[in-house]
Amino acid sequence: MPAEGFLPGPVRIVGTGLIGGSLGLALRAAGAEVQVSDISPGTTALAIELGVGRAIREDDEEPALVLVAAPPDVAAALVAEQLRAHPGAIVADVASVKSVVLDGLLRREAEGQLDAEQISRYIGGHPMAGRETSGVIAAQTDLFRGRPFVIVPHERTVPAAVSLLRRVAVEIGSLPVNLSAAEHDAAVAHVSHAPQVVASLLGAALLDAQGIALDLAGQGLRDTSRIAASDPRLWVEILSANARALTPVLEDIRGRLDSLIGSLATLQGDPDPAVGSRREVARLIADGNAGVARIPGKHGSGTDSFAAVVVLVPDAPGELGRLLTEMGQIGVNLEDLRLEHSLGQPVGLAHVAVARAHESLLTTALRERGWTVADA
Amino acid sequence: MPAEGFLPGPVRIVGTGLIGGSLGLALRAAGAEVQVSDISPGTTALAIELGVGRAIREDDEEPALVLVAAPPDVAAALVAEQLRAHPGAIVADVASVKSVVLDGLLRREAEGQLDAEQISRYIGGHPMAGRETSGVIAAQTDLFRGRPFVIVPHERTVPAAVSLLRRVAVEIGSLPVNLSAAEHDAAVAHVSHAPQVVASLLGAALLDAQGIALDLAGQGLRDTSRIAASDPRLWVEILSANARALTPVLEDIRGRLDSLIGSLATLQGDPDPAVGSRREVARLIADGNAGVARIPGKHGSGTDSFAAVVVLVPDAPGELGRLLTEMGQIGVNLEDLRLEHSLGQPVGLAHVAVARAHESLLTTALRERGWTVADA
Repeated sequence: MPAEGFLPGPVRIVGTGLIGGSLGLALRAAGAEVQVSDISPGTTALAIELGVGRAIREDDEEPALVLVAAPPDVAAALVAEQLRAHPGAIVADVASVKSVVLDGLLRREAEGQLDAEQISRYIGGHPMAGRETSGVIAAQTDLFRGRPFVIVPHERTVPAAVSLLRRVAVEIGSLPVNLSAAEHDAAVAHVSHAPQVVASLLGAALLDAQGIALDLAGQGLRDTSRIAASDPRLWVEILSANARALTPVLEDIRGRLDSLIGSLATLQGDPDPAVGSRREVARLIADGNAGVARIPGKHGSGTDSFAAVVVLVPDAPGELGRLLTEMGQIGVNLEDLRLEHSLGQPVGLAHVAVARAHESLLTTALRERGWTVADA
Repeated sequence: MPAEGFLPGPVRIVGTGLIGGSLGLALRAAGAEVQVSDISPGTTALAIELGVGRAIREDDEEPALVLVAAPPDVAAALVAEQLRAHPGAIVADVASVKSVVLDGLLRREAEGQLDAEQISRYIGGHPMAGRETSGVIAAQTDLFRGRPFVIVPHERTVPAAVSLLRRVAVEIGSLPVNLSAAEHDAAVAHVSHAPQVVASLLGAALLDAQGIALDLAGQGLRDTSRIAASDPRLWVEILSANARALTPVLEDIRGRLDSLIGSLATLQGDPDPAVGSRREVARLIADGNAGVARIPGKHGSGTDSFAAVVVLVPDAPGELGRLLTEMGQIGVNLEDLRLEHSLGQPVGLAHVAVARAHESLLTTALRERGWTVADA
């Protein structure tokens, strides 16, 4: 379990929303002393009540580390303030866009509001986790467990800041990855911001759909649009702050969409259209195949190592548990599980992913135990 | 269990891919006699071997129902052929686009290749299910269970065809919904084809991402791009066939994307930009919120009736089963479950959705039993 005192002093969290709150919970669970403050006194009080940290006292001990957990548009100002207020502290921000914060600090240095020593104590960070719900009330101790924590030093960051933030990342169970601000911003444009934009575009298009259309919605629409439920106030700041890195990705998407719409116009009403238009449409889908195949990990659909076994599960307490317990008895480990509810029927379908080598063993053994397993 | 002989004669399935194959399996499970044929003799043989149906014999009994399960671009020709070949049969196609098939048949009638009696025996259908994998090898008896089955009569379809196809839908466990061809095509443009396009656009944009970016991929990207793994050959036909209904939806998406790119250009490099640009970005996200909130069902994030409880589960056989068994003992029913794997860590997170009223009971009871439950 966590080492007591892995930090040379208290950590101060400035901004106790979902991310700041979860960092406080995780750091306290790891044995750190956590001081909290938020621009809103009510939010500060709620965070303290929820166990995120304790109030800052007058004449309080100086923090060894300040974590600024604020939206990207205000992070630089808050970091500058903390660098000046705590001359002995490393100050990191954990906003989800990094260049805009670093640029804001370098501008303040150029304008004489910060000096080189202060700038050297700044480091960027981005623990890559989130939820569709926001605010400290949604904070979770385990939010960052197993997730990447991007560490973003600039050219003049002191080495002690890098090792301290990496230590924090490891202590809260996340996986530190070093990137420059530009590398980070280009990466999140692809894996986080563009998905948010396309999900929102798809969700917004549903506003014009007939009611009956929505009754036909399946898992494809639900998955593709899930993150469209995110907080507009937060996302306007994120997308705006990462405009430079995000724009080329969105322009790529627009170019492909333009080309698709053009191809569909050619194909429409032409019973025997040119091969070129069809090829354009097929290329989009094929490029999509190739792109998602690049996503690593168990959930990637590009991998062939896992097989899905589909089992009918009565929709009653304990039935899914019984299934998975029996899978354990059979000795087959579950790689992934997706539950699919049947509209108006007293059963669900459990899509159980297992190592391909275990597929037929599992299917046979489950059928012997009386489960209904879909044919492969 | 299924009534024997709910059809007045054999059902013939023309085209034994994923959908035709699954229809055959489901109809046989429901007690129907199923004859199969596919343009590929190899596929026909494989379908027979997999239990989809039996080979057609010379002097075989005439089918009461023919189900044409072919891509939309060839469905009309096959339906016309079957209407002529089987004067006593109802002929339905189950392609995922309906106007193009009906138009193709009406054109053949206008050209004298079909007569009014033949046309009256045609009805469209669309059992709304699919998988990312295609072909008869992926066919499943339960593919349509609990899914909508859209019944698409035209103005002159005989009433017997409607009742017969509805009966088929019910017998295979799906939920019949009557729509016109235009209504159907507009609905699937929103709930099926536009999601495919945006997922493919997002997936294709990943081709330009740095490798490190993909290592940062989280559940948001995975969900949003999942269906981008679909079959290009099938989807070029579907998108082309539904160009008329799909184009306005894609133009709506393009309009919003243009506006977003324009707003980001204004915001970029302007530390204190006009309020209007920010508002445009926020409106896209807010409209996305409102659109996804229209999606009904347990999985909709717009509903407040369910709460997510997050539990740490050791990544070992039987552990998730033990969790769910104990939930059953506690007496709480599972509404949804999502498993989240931690990179390089021996634990997973089970996101368990339960009725909001049971959330605190469940959290307390699980903690008493020694489970680690994330703070709400």
